[in-house]
Amino acid sequence: MTTEFTTRITEAVVDSLDGTADPRLRELLAALTRHLHAFVRETEPTTAEWERAIAFLTATGQTCTDTRQEFVLLSDVLGVSMLVETINSGEGDEGDEHRSEAPGGVTESTVLGPFHMTESPVRELGADIDLVGGGEPCVISGRVLSRDGTPLPGAVLDVWQASADGYYDVQQPEVQPAGNGRGLFTADTEGRFWFRTCVPSPYPIPTDGPVGDLLRATARHPYRPAHIHFIASADGHTPVTTHIFVAGSDHLDSDAVFAVKDSLVQDFTETDDPSLAREFGIPNPFRHARFDLVLNVRTPGSDARDSGRV
Amino acid sequence: MTTEFTTRITEAVVDSLDGTADPRLRELLAALTRHLHAFVRETEPTTAEWERAIAFLTATGQTCTDTRQEFVLLSDVLGVSMLVETINSGEGDEGDEHRSEAPGGVTESTVLGPFHMTESPVRELGADIDLVGGGEPCVISGRVLSRDGTPLPGAVLDVWQASADGYYDVQQPEVQPAGNGRGLFTADTEGRFWFRTCVPSPYPIPTDGPVGDLLRATARHPYRPAHIHFIASADGHTPVTTHIFVAGSDHLDSDAVFAVKDSLVQDFTETDDPSLAREFGIPNPFRHARFDLVLNVRTPGSDARDSGRV
Repeated sequence: MTTEFTTRITEAVVDSLDGTADPRLRELLAALTRHLHAFVRETEPTTAEWERAIAFLTATGQTCTDTRQEFVLLSDVLGVSMLVETINSGEGDEGDEHRSEAPGGVTESTVLGPFHMTESPVRELGADIDLVGGGEPCVISGRVLSRDGTPLPGAVLDVWQASADGYYDVQQPEVQPAGNGRGLFTADTEGRFWFRTCVPSPYPIPTDGPVGDLLRATARHPYRPAHIHFIASADGHTPVTTHIFVAGSDHLDSDAVFAVKDSLVQDFTETDDPSLAREFGIPNPFRHARFDLVLNVRTPGSDARDSGRV
Repeated sequence: MTTEFTTRITEAVVDSLDGTADPRLRELLAALTRHLHAFVRETEPTTAEWERAIAFLTATGQTCTDTRQEFVLLSDVLGVSMLVETINSGEGDEGDEHRSEAPGGVTESTVLGPFHMTESPVRELGADIDLVGGGEPCVISGRVLSRDGTPLPGAVLDVWQASADGYYDVQQPEVQPAGNGRGLFTADTEGRFWFRTCVPSPYPIPTDGPVGDLLRATARHPYRPAHIHFIASADGHTPVTTHIFVAGSDHLDSDAVFAVKDSLVQDFTETDDPSLAREFGIPNPFRHARFDLVLNVRTPGSDARDSGRV
């Protein structure tokens, strides 16, 4: 009886979705039902465990505010965000000879994270996005290129990072001015970009909510290796959401949100070059990270996943 | 690359749980990760779809209050609550010759539902739990029995139901006194119980939150067939959480929460019996539902799932 009922109810729920007008929504909900029921049949949660799960999800929702997204954080620490991001990046599409992990290939994607919540202020190339100081000054520079190496003038870079203390502006509205660590840059006529900031530090994701409880219960540390977020976009190209990670940072091999890809780790080189320092308007010596962001050409095929389904 | 990464990340997340002190929690989270990732790999949600899911879960959490549990409702409409309840009921355990669907067998379980939120007031046998009136008066009577037919004196019945208008007391604090439609009864020395109430009506689950949006998007109606909730418990026996459904009610074949089992449908018989009416203190004629609640004997084996895991 139990076996029969526990199979039949899955069919009953899936059948109940037959009237769904949007075929994609029906597909998603039917698959969700099948996978969720399979999980329950496999693990046979007790009523007390189910109640604990309900309470956990409720607390996760209630921890969210205008400046905090605990469900994104939950998705992050379970590797779901990274999985979705990778699927959507179109990296390594079948028959694609430009595999993204290859040096010089298309820049790999990684998670958006929960802190891309406010609009980054428009800034001039060369501007300093570190409005509070205290960190090690550095320059980030490079080019935005199409996959065949053609520079992309006018490409837009949305950049955000935590302060030297490891907090984003939205986490410390009384300490940091809004927009600290953020900038919206437009590449120059040769596709080049450069700006000043501080070398980022590793930092813990917020641990004072349900996701923190989960990390403690699983003896996982909450740290992310030092990184700067980028979304690079250009006409006729698929945007990439990614980070650069600081080579040598702690936690590169155990990022709390599973976002590290080898190709995204960059040297922040100690640079002693007075004339370059003058050019960038930064004290000499300084740290300098140089890399290119390489975008895939947008094609009707690669477009479908972004625009066709929702 | 994508295929390789999307498999590897599942292993990475499962491996990250290795330090979990509680082995059951590790088992649950590892299985959740595998099933959730399999769902994502199968359906390949777009970033926009993932964002919609995050927003839906967040709104579901934020709809919860002290008297409303939208995540339980979500679990209900996806059939998860019913699946968990059935697994935990121990119905039809292998080798059990007393199959619960058989007439005279152990009473089948069904969902707790989101409205068992307050303690039911202790009431005397025969009391009327309908404190507001307006419905069709009826008597509920029967016995609590052990599986071999032995009456269970002192068995406790926790009863709750919606008003004749289809609302629970906690949904209408300004209209219904707290405890309306609820009662905690103790069976007499022969295991008998009886009380008065109104014949329940079908009612919609709350549709003004995210779960209502989900039902509308899937063209599902929100109605539950008319029912009364019971939790029956007795020393030495496994408690049963169940309903009785009113035979002939609308929506018996399309309960919004998939909770109907044939054995739980009971006649609310039109009864013209002045002496019985006098005995029950109810106007003649009246409606009368008569059924027994039959509990499984608690054994060390059947106990394990309730007490051993959390």
